[in-house]
Parts: sequence; structure tokens; C-alpha cells
Amino acid sequence: MKPLPSLSLTDRVENKLREFFEEHAFKPGDPLPNEMEIAENMQVSRNVVREALSRLRMLGMIETRPRKGMIMARPDILGGIERVLNPYILGKNTLKDIFELRLILEMGLAEVLFERKTAKGIKELEEIVERQIKMKSLTKEDEIEFHGKLYEMSGNETLRRFQILLFPIFDHVYKNIPKDPKNKIQDPITHKDLLNILKNGTPQEFRTAIYKHLSPYFTGTVFSY
Amino acid sequence: MKPLPSLSLTDRVENKLREFFEEHAFKPGDPLPNEMEIAENMQVSRNVVREALSRLRMLGMIETRPRKGMIMARPDILGGIERVLNPYILGKNTLKDIFELRLILEMGLAEVLFERKTAKGIKELEEIVERQIKMKSLTKEDEIEFHGKLYEMSGNETLRRFQILLFPIFDHVYKNIPKDPKNKIQDPITHKDLLNILKNGTPQEFRTAIYKHLSPYFTGTVFSY
Repeated sequence: MKPLPSLSLTDRVENKLREFFEEHAFKPGDPLPNEMEIAENMQVSRNVVREALSRLRMLGMIETRPRKGMIMARPDILGGIERVLNPYILGKNTLKDIFELRLILEMGLAEVLFERKTAKGIKELEEIVERQIKMKSLTKEDEIEFHGKLYEMSGNETLRRFQILLFPIFDHVYKNIPKDPKNKIQDPITHKDLLNILKNGTPQEFRTAIYKHLSPYFTGTVFSY
Repeated sequence: MKPLPSLSLTDRVENKLREFFEEHAFKPGDPLPNEMEIAENMQVSRNVVREALSRLRMLGMIETRPRKGMIMARPDILGGIERVLNPYILGKNTLKDIFELRLILEMGLAEVLFERKTAKGIKELEEIVERQIKMKSLTKEDEIEFHGKLYEMSGNETLRRFQILLFPIFDHVYKNIPKDPKNKIQDPITHKDLLNILKNGTPQEFRTAIYKHLSPYFTGTVFSY
């Protein structure tokens, strides 16, 4: 059991505001009470309200429009995660969970990918692979390009953006772990292999291949199973 | 193409602070410059700095400790997402992506689950199923209990918490869509079926069953494939 976090006045005002918005089913574009009205109703100082509103503005939940005043807005669901993705401050367990999450997502994606793949998507993936075959080693950007295309072909935009956000974390952690030559992969699965399975194989084959393809991120590291 | 968001002074100070923390590789517990020092260095007012710091405090990136002053902290990676999970303000496409994300996660979980299942975990899942069999219909809490146990058995705590956060959204959206009796599921997959497959089946069987089990959330709704 962990001690309950002690809430500051700003925390409480922020929580109350979010509850108020949801209880009243405010929708993006709806006008909201202004800072002064909120301060009067909650009987707190305007400084505290301003801080709480600034937090919600950061999350994209509210906006201020010229002549319209403060309105409800449509937040970016990934905005909050994006801001804390600093590998120096996230705990080891969280980093491990994120690494694993990627593997789980890309294996779970197989069914959706086979259901939604199009000739156009396959052609674009082929072009990426053709270009990458000529390279000696792949950069972080090459990895994002290939795997990002897979996510794009899945049709799930939130997932695609999530993957792009996470990539620098994978890259940082992977680069900062000493490699053990004993763990060198014997028969690595390449992007070309994955492409061929996506063209002519089955979801099950794709899942197995993705597992092997991503395994260098796991084996011989602190993140090994 | 969308217009670039215009950044306020507070946005810019917030961004600069996060960059500064990461560039200097501050770790949780490290002392940070105080509000006055930051304001002087950045040549902005203390009010603006206070607002920016309040945002980072909300995300759990910084804390103020008695006698130690402001220190770097370990944020909760899900804190930002948790705050914006209001079904009235998230866009229809984002809600669709989240619904699908759940399906992808639970299918992708199969390999990990079969690798890590323990006698203790199976026994706990059996107890949940036994209790639920006696009920006429399952509540949201029952669903969280069963699926939450699966996530728990996967050993990925971040995923488990993520699922608990998302559940009220599934529940809200599902309840608010008119059901079409034509779409009534003929041979629904129950929690007991999933348990039996986890005990005696294969990851592939589990994946297929999870797909069918979750399909009522998709078929005959705005989220149908």
C-alpha cells in the first residue's frame, strides 16, 4: 500500500472542473464559465483557478477563442503521455512494460492487418523495403518508416501516433544497454521477410515473425523474458 | 494540413523546461532550480513560470518536498490519458481507435498469457468465473474483474492499469448505442469458455475466442468493421 497523494488546492480545483465538465456533458465548442465565475463559485482565488485552467489548456481540454471566451475543446488523447516520455524519469518497470506493449500490439495487429491490407499499402511497403535493402544498417528513422507503415495499414491512427511517440524511448533504452555478443541473432527476421509474409502468409506466421523480429530488443537485456 | 497551434508564453516555458530536464538527464530525486531562478534565466514573469510548473506537477514530473525544495519526480505514464478520458469530448475516430485497441491488445496478449499463466492465476480466474456463472447478467465491474485478471496474469502492470482506465469509456459508448436485435450473438463466447481455452487450449484458439467474445462491442454499432 502506498500513501495517498496529498492534494493541493490547485489539484482539487482541477479535479472539480473535470468532473463538472463531464457531469454536464459539455461538448467541444460549448462555452464555459470564465475564470472569475469559477473562482467565485468555488470560493478560491483567481490565481488557483488560473493554474488549474492552464493544466486543462495544456491537455487540450479547453481553449480560449477571440470574442467567444473559453470553450470546451477536443483533447489529443496522447498529449499527456507524450509529455512524460523521458527515459531518465520513467521507472524501469514502466520502460519494461512499454517495450512489451509494443510486442503485444504488433502481434495483436496481425488479424487487423491481414483484413485491411490493400494493394496500395503493400506497394508502399515494398518501396520502403527496396530502399532499405541497399543500406548497411537501419537508422531509427528507417525503423519508424517500416513499422509506422504497418500501423498506418492497420487504419488505427491513434495506434500509429502512439508508436511514433514511443520509438525514441525504444531507441534510447536499446542503445544504452551493453550488447552481449553471445546473444547475436542467428537467423534474424528482416523487414523483407515480414513484407513477404504479409503478402503471401497467414496472421499466425506474421505474429511468429514479428516476435522474432523484435526479440533483439528483449533477449540479453534487462528486459529479457 | 492543419494550422500549427499558436503557442502561448506558458506553452513555450513548459516546453523549454521539459527539454532542459531531458537534456541534462535529471533523474527522480534530483534538485531543480526554483521558480525565481527559472524566471530570471528565461526572462519571463514568475506567474508564467508558476503556471508552467503547475502543469508539470500535474503530470507528476516534479514535486516540492519540505526542506528539499523542488525535485525531479517519477511521473505516472498514464496520468495525462486518465484526465482526458471523457467520452463527451473525445472524437468519434479516437473512440473507435480505443475500442479497436482493446481488441488488438487482448489478441496480442495471448502468447504472453500462455507463457506466464500460473496455477495460482488460473485458480483465481476460476473463482471469478464460478461467482459470475450464478449471475443473470454481468455488470461493468464483473467485466473489469475478469479481463483485469487476464491483464494481471500477463504481468504487465501498465497494461492492466490502462485497461481499467479505458473500461468506463467502453461501457459508456456501448450503453449509448441503440442495440439492433438482428445483431444478437448466436453462440456467444463466455468467460468460462475463455478460461477453459486458457487452461487447455492454444494461443491461436484463445485469440479467436477473444475476438468473438468482444465482437458485441463492434457488430451492429457505429464501430462495426
